[in-house]
Amino acid sequence: MPRTFSSSPVRDLLALTARPEVISFAGGLPAPEFFDVDGLRTAFDQALSRRSLQYAPTEGDVDLRALVADRLARRGLPTDVEDLLITTGSQQALTLVVTALLEPGAVVAVEEPTYLAALQCFQLAGARIVPVASDEHGMDPAALADVIARERPELLYLVPTFANPTGRTLSLERRVEIAALADRHGLWVVEDDPYSELRYRGEPVPALASLSERVLYAGSFSKVGAPGMRLGWLRAPASIMRTLVIVKQAADLHTSTIDQAAAAVYLKANDLDLHVQGLCAGYRERRDAMIAALPSTVPDGTRWTDPDGGMFVWLTLPGDVDTAALVMSALERDVAFVPGASFYATTPDRSTMRLSFTTNTTAAIAEGMRRLATVLR
Amino acid sequence: MPRTFSSSPVRDLLALTARPEVISFAGGLPAPEFFDVDGLRTAFDQALSRRSLQYAPTEGDVDLRALVADRLARRGLPTDVEDLLITTGSQQALTLVVTALLEPGAVVAVEEPTYLAALQCFQLAGARIVPVASDEHGMDPAALADVIARERPELLYLVPTFANPTGRTLSLERRVEIAALADRHGLWVVEDDPYSELRYRGEPVPALASLSERVLYAGSFSKVGAPGMRLGWLRAPASIMRTLVIVKQAADLHTSTIDQAAAAVYLKANDLDLHVQGLCAGYRERRDAMIAALPSTVPDGTRWTDPDGGMFVWLTLPGDVDTAALVMSALERDVAFVPGASFYATTPDRSTMRLSFTTNTTAAIAEGMRRLATVLR
Repeated sequence: MPRTFSSSPVRDLLALTARPEVISFAGGLPAPEFFDVDGLRTAFDQALSRRSLQYAPTEGDVDLRALVADRLARRGLPTDVEDLLITTGSQQALTLVVTALLEPGAVVAVEEPTYLAALQCFQLAGARIVPVASDEHGMDPAALADVIARERPELLYLVPTFANPTGRTLSLERRVEIAALADRHGLWVVEDDPYSELRYRGEPVPALASLSERVLYAGSFSKVGAPGMRLGWLRAPASIMRTLVIVKQAADLHTSTIDQAAAAVYLKANDLDLHVQGLCAGYRERRDAMIAALPSTVPDGTRWTDPDGGMFVWLTLPGDVDTAALVMSALERDVAFVPGASFYATTPDRSTMRLSFTTNTTAAIAEGMRRLATVLR
Repeated sequence: MPRTFSSSPVRDLLALTARPEVISFAGGLPAPEFFDVDGLRTAFDQALSRRSLQYAPTEGDVDLRALVADRLARRGLPTDVEDLLITTGSQQALTLVVTALLEPGAVVAVEEPTYLAALQCFQLAGARIVPVASDEHGMDPAALADVIARERPELLYLVPTFANPTGRTLSLERRVEIAALADRHGLWVVEDDPYSELRYRGEPVPALASLSERVLYAGSFSKVGAPGMRLGWLRAPASIMRTLVIVKQAADLHTSTIDQAAAAVYLKANDLDLHVQGLCAGYRERRDAMIAALPSTVPDGTRWTDPDGGMFVWLTLPGDVDTAALVMSALERDVAFVPGASFYATTPDRSTMRLSFTTNTTAAIAEGMRRLATVLR
């Protein structure tokens, strides 16, 4: 008998939102109209060679690693080529870390709610997931200290900046405290950071990885470049890099040589910062359109996050409502969202829901929110 | 502390063979001069689009799955689109199967010697590996029956056609017996089949997967197309496909959208059979050059395989010799091979070695074998 695991309700839901008339706030996709198709086409053409079609080192393309290291350093996270492992999307980084660090039965501490596919990784590894309380400033360090004392977790998983699904950002003060806790207790921390470059207001907050040697930092080309290339990277301490490389070998030998080579050509030939500025301008408008529409969309007493960046707004409806029961009515009205319960490892708050503002124009957002109002109000 | 796993000695060795003056028989690489660079360049250019840069379904590109299904069917293995999961190289298929089917402590039966990176997968999963005796016709069904009775394996792993590292092919008679054993005992079988299209003489043998519903069949674009694209596929029974898709989601969400789209365009626009005929003509010459040189390369009493296809010749030297001790002398003489011990899960035969004939011209093979003779004789 195969082992039994639960599927991703988000991906199952996405299948239902494929009808073109549906305005979907359900996905976590970047807007394809902002992809630099011409730049990437040129990059693939230049990168294609006998070398880029051949097997390659497990650690990843040296040019790409150097470019990523340089980029991270300029963003305040000093990084050497040897600190980086190229992964098949940052999703793979999570699986590699879990395989490298966790024995079955190990305890993983997470924010609640948190990124669904990370929870799936931990569940597949046979880990026990323990939630840590958080609020609008992210995870509460006192609650983490308590969980460390009580549960002895091996690993803490965080999306500290513009979290999925809440859009919240962990404050610098709390980052310092959490880094200190990790150091003091020998806790490994995974900082999953696909969104931090998508900042629409305020100043960047230093990466957790810049505050402690216990932090493994996962980055991605998916939100600033193109997710179809499945390119991510893991910045990890030397003490565990060797194990991670062995696990990566067994997982897929190495990430696509041609996609890595194309990304390296692209990063050399283009100003990604400028491209990201354009993305931010586009997404900022869309976030603003969604936030502006919310008061007339939701019932009185609804709370929502107003994210400084990223892709998501998180809603908590008033009263004893289950948003999963509202999804089918929403789909009948050609609008979609993700019920919040999926993002909880333990006891879900069923009155929550996630809205993504990235893939619809401001006009489509306004129309989608009007449709949603007929379901929610 | 990270968990500790052993690295791949082959990949470690490959790092030593990177000097251009080394004639390496160590790798298991396809010959880059046979890559269809122009065809693949055109395919990438045509495939590149907003859609192929976006996230995509975990199961894989529907067009590519249909093309692979059609190709398998024409080769005698009836396959529907729904039977196929696209994987990030066939290496990933092994990891997915292991995660989907095996609990830690499960028993996996293997040929000995066998593909090293498969052994690593099973070890990472905490499986116990049990060897099954084999001879020049592949795994011995009577020995397998004995292992089934004694060890109750969950999974049998085989490279039945032109095996890595031996080059041997499991006879049809034995395939029928092994398929019957799998059916009778509810044993899952992984048929790892990257090489069967590279046949240089004789008639194709039916895939094990055509003989039993208990067989998961892993195929690859790496040996007939280009390994840098990291494209493989897993043909699996419906009863476990759902679990495999969930495991794949957690592993990397999906395989590179652009690489899948390019492969689909390539397979539609080109006659891969014709390309494979060209590959076979080239590799046949190289195999013949290596086999012809062997009598004057090795000491009297050496045994070797004479493979009908694939990439490898397997040598067993006479007497009490450890080929690992000969590798450094070989490298000093600018020639490389892989000592056989790495391919054994249990007790290695240290007098064995693997030679690959694919990546060197016939002239380079002749020169490399002359150098090797000075080490071996």
